[in-house]
Formats: sequence, C-alpha cells, structure tokens
Amino acid sequence: MAEIRIVEVSPRDGLQNESVLLTTDQKHELVRRAVRFGARNVEVTSFVHPGKVPAMADAEQLLARLSPADGVVYSALVLNERGLERAIAAGVTEVNAVVHCTDTFSRRNQGTDIAGGVRIWQAVAARCAHAGVRANVTLAVAFGCPFEGEVTPEVVREVGGRVLDAGIPAELSLADTIGVAVPRDVTLRVDAVRDLLPGGTALRAHFHNTRNTGVANALAAIDAGVTILDSSLGGIGGCPFAPRATGNVATEDLVYALDRSGITHDLDPGSVHEAGEWLEAVMGRPLPAMVLHAGGFPVTRLGTG
Amino acid sequence: MAEIRIVEVSPRDGLQNESVLLTTDQKHELVRRAVRFGARNVEVTSFVHPGKVPAMADAEQLLARLSPADGVVYSALVLNERGLERAIAAGVTEVNAVVHCTDTFSRRNQGTDIAGGVRIWQAVAARCAHAGVRANVTLAVAFGCPFEGEVTPEVVREVGGRVLDAGIPAELSLADTIGVAVPRDVTLRVDAVRDLLPGGTALRAHFHNTRNTGVANALAAIDAGVTILDSSLGGIGGCPFAPRATGNVATEDLVYALDRSGITHDLDPGSVHEAGEWLEAVMGRPLPAMVLHAGGFPVTRLGTG
Repeated sequence: MAEIRIVEVSPRDGLQNESVLLTTDQKHELVRRAVRFGARNVEVTSFVHPGKVPAMADAEQLLARLSPADGVVYSALVLNERGLERAIAAGVTEVNAVVHCTDTFSRRNQGTDIAGGVRIWQAVAARCAHAGVRANVTLAVAFGCPFEGEVTPEVVREVGGRVLDAGIPAELSLADTIGVAVPRDVTLRVDAVRDLLPGGTALRAHFHNTRNTGVANALAAIDAGVTILDSSLGGIGGCPFAPRATGNVATEDLVYALDRSGITHDLDPGSVHEAGEWLEAVMGRPLPAMVLHAGGFPVTRLGTG
Repeated sequence: MAEIRIVEVSPRDGLQNESVLLTTDQKHELVRRAVRFGARNVEVTSFVHPGKVPAMADAEQLLARLSPADGVVYSALVLNERGLERAIAAGVTEVNAVVHCTDTFSRRNQGTDIAGGVRIWQAVAARCAHAGVRANVTLAVAFGCPFEGEVTPEVVREVGGRVLDAGIPAELSLADTIGVAVPRDVTLRVDAVRDLLPGGTALRAHFHNTRNTGVANALAAIDAGVTILDSSLGGIGGCPFAPRATGNVATEDLVYALDRSGITHDLDPGSVHEAGEWLEAVMGRPLPAMVLHAGGFPVTRLGTG
C-alpha cells in the first residue's frame, strides 16, 4: 500500500509551459508510459480555451485515445463551467478545479477575482456531484504571487474556508504556482488549512522547483500530513512568470527522494527513468530532472514494465 | 550575528570539477567578489599535486595575490602533509583536511585507506597546532560511496571517533561527496557523531545537488545542529563520478532558502546575484544555480557592495 500517491502532471502542467508542442500521438505515448511506470493518476490535459493555451487544444482528441487501465484515473484541469462540460462530455471521471489566493493572479489566469473563483468552484462541485465526477480543488499561488507578493497562511486559510463552504472536494491541493516556497512555508500553510478539512478530503500539494526548493517542499508537505503530490516527468514545465526557470518537481527526483527516505509510493524508478530518457529525446533538450542525468543510488532499480 | 556561517567553496570544489580552467586573475576576482558578497570564509584552493588537479596548480600564486580582509579567512584543502607544508609556506591560516569513510574511495582520492587517512589527519592536526593554523576535518563520502555503496551512520560514527581520537578539529564536516543524501540521512549521521564532539568543535556540512536534494539536506543539517554550510557560487562543480551532474549546493539557492526560512547568515543576496551573473559569463554556460535565473522573491534584495 502506497504511503504517498504521486499524480503525474507532465501532460498538463508540464507541456502547457513548454515551447515545443507535442503531437497528440506523443502525448498519448507520454500518458501510456506514465501508466507503465506506475502512476495511478495522470493529469492528462486541461479544458481551457485553445486560443489561450494552444498546447492543450487537442484535449478531446487525447481523451478519446486513452484506453481504460485498471486502477488508473485520467484527470483533467478545468478553469470554469464551460471547461467542465467539455471534460464531462469527453468522459473524464475526475477534475481539478482552481481557486486562486490573490485577486490579481485570479483575474489574469481565470478572468475573475477570488470571489468569482469560489463561485465557479461552487458550480463545478455541484455539477460534478450530479454527474458522478470526482472533483478536486487547488488553491493556487498559495505561497506567493508574482503580482501581489507575499500570500500569508492566514490568507490561505481564509480562501480555503470559503472554498470548503462552497463545496467539499475529494482533494484540497496547495499549489506553489510560481515556485517560491520553502519548507517552513509549507508547514505553516498545511497547518493553516488542516483543521478546516472534512474527514473525507485528502491533502495534496503541487510544487515547482523554480528556486531549487521543490524536493525540500515535497518532503515537508509529507511531514505535515499531505498524502498526494504532483510531479512532472523530466521536471518539464518552466514557469511563464520566470522565463529561464524550470518546471514542476521532477518525478525522477521525487521518486529518488521518497525511496531513499523509506517512503512508499506506486512508481517504479527504472521505468520512470526510461520514460524520462524518451521524453528528453522528444523535447530535444536536456530536461531539469537531475536523477535522470545522475542516476539513482546505489543504482537505479531496473524497470519492471 | 549570523546563525549560519556559509563557506564559499567555488574557487576550490567548484573549479576543481569544471572543464573550463580559470586564470589566476579570474580566480582572484571570484574570491574578491565572494568577500564583497559577505563570505567570511572562502576555500580558495587546494594544495594537491598539480599533475592530478591541474585546475589548482596556481595555489601559491593565488594566495600571494589575496589581500587580507577584515574578518575574512582564506582557507585551503590539503590531502597530506606535503600539501600542508605548502599551505603553511603560502601563509594559509586555516586548512581543511579529509578522511574518507570508505577504503576504496580513500585509496583513489588520497592514495591510502581509511587508517592511512586517519594517520594523515593526526600528523596534520599536530603540525597545525604547532604552526598556529586552524585545522578542520571533513568526513568524505559520509552518505554513500560510488565504489562501496551505502555508508551507514554507524560507519560515520566509527570513522568520526577514530578521527577525533587522532586530533581535535575546529570543525568536523560531513560531506555528501557524490550527492546521494536525503534529509533523513543527514539527521541520522549528524545524530551519530554529535555526542562524540568536544565542546569547542563546530559541526559543518557539505552537500552536492547531484540529485536535487541539496537544499533539503542543508535545511535538515541546520535542524540537526549544523552551524556551518559549504556552498558554491552558481552551483558550479559537477561531480567526477556523475558526468552529467551538477555541483555543490548553489550559494544563490542556499541564501534564498535561508532568507525565506528566517535563518540569518552573512551574505548579501543582491551581491551574490551580481557575482553569479559575472561567473556565468566567465564560465560561458548557464550555471545550475536556479535563483540566479529565476530571481528572488518577492524580489532579489539589491546589493550593498
């Protein structure tokens, strides 16, 4: 039984921020490899306006190709009710909605302020309950905002409370959208929301390694009680607000840190490594994942897939 | 008063593992900039055989150029008594000696086994006491060895005990020479040696970010009681045992993590950033330090230098 569940987000958050556009075939292969290396949840796409995020324009086409796999969920990001309806029509069974912790970031990313984001979440949660779709919500820019600066634990708690009043998610995720957090920030923010959560809601976290604190933050989140972590194969993703920065915590590096820490999960490091080498070839550049280049220790376990 | 002292090791451990050789002028400028950004201890070179480490062949020439600066120590690495005599002749007032935690790594790096390394340390400590030179010792490959694999806390404690029996260092450092540690490893090894230490000996740690755990390990070391941390401007250094890997924990990234964690130190982030940009231009490639590229948060503080 896995102590930690890892959600592979490279097909969504990773590719969304890359200048290289993958074909639907290549995305399909990426998802297939994620399933092969043991991911039980793959965030495969986002249902957003194709004019705004061209990399996600093939959301329906990709979903249509994915074969059901035992025990595997193909989840998708939605930013509003229109996106949710597209996701439901495409057969998605689990969605990740977003409420931002600052008005400015919310307006730029979602076209509405925090209050508007909470209303969207309320509608999404209700529609999902009706449609039998599992609904998670992410508190974005929960550790800092490129426009408004510091985001305190008190703000995260306040926004989290409004979100939970509007609808109960299966998972509440805290996202360091721009990669500014340090472990102390993680502990304080998880502590700030923990007692708000109903018993059935799991804690999830999403880190970017923009300032080299991603692995430290992931381990701090686990210490604080988070049981679900997002990561991205190869560490792809970048950050639109820091042009030279790298992306999500790399799946390779997270798996290494968990394995060496004695924390169990579902992924096979050898198959993760093979998938990372494949993705590096597809992207055509050295990817940020460091274990991909340095190897494991004592050695990378061989794949079973 | 700084809670943590940061030793800038880019002129030694950084440049030692880089294919680009800097001129003595450039090294001088690097040290000058380290002093300007606030480093109170700069490991400026190593006194090793120039045939083995060509990058350090100008040790005497570099030392001769360094002007004394108030409160700043220019330290050097020595691997044996011959190196120590060169260091003393060059006017070095603080040396870092090394005892390896595995026989195989010790033979390859120092030409002798652990017992031989302990004897060298005994001679170095005695000679330093006589010469009025401050002597530190590093337990190298304390977290894993590329040849022998796992290095347990028990081994670190055993080697540490022999080292302390042979001579009392001003600082005892635990080094993750090949960058395999995770925070739990750090806690266990610091715990393993702590009660061996005489009151006057400070705990120091040296991490490589080879597998993206460097910042996490540095913070874990502080939690465990380490008060001195090594880092390298730009994260330069690589690792001779992992050709595609990056080097020491980057000074930029360490300073960011400490500042955001409320841990005080002597360095000025703005001046560190300027020095990192200079070094990147000198090295002619993007350096691994991530805060160098992403910037600080809310913004990088401006330099005072």
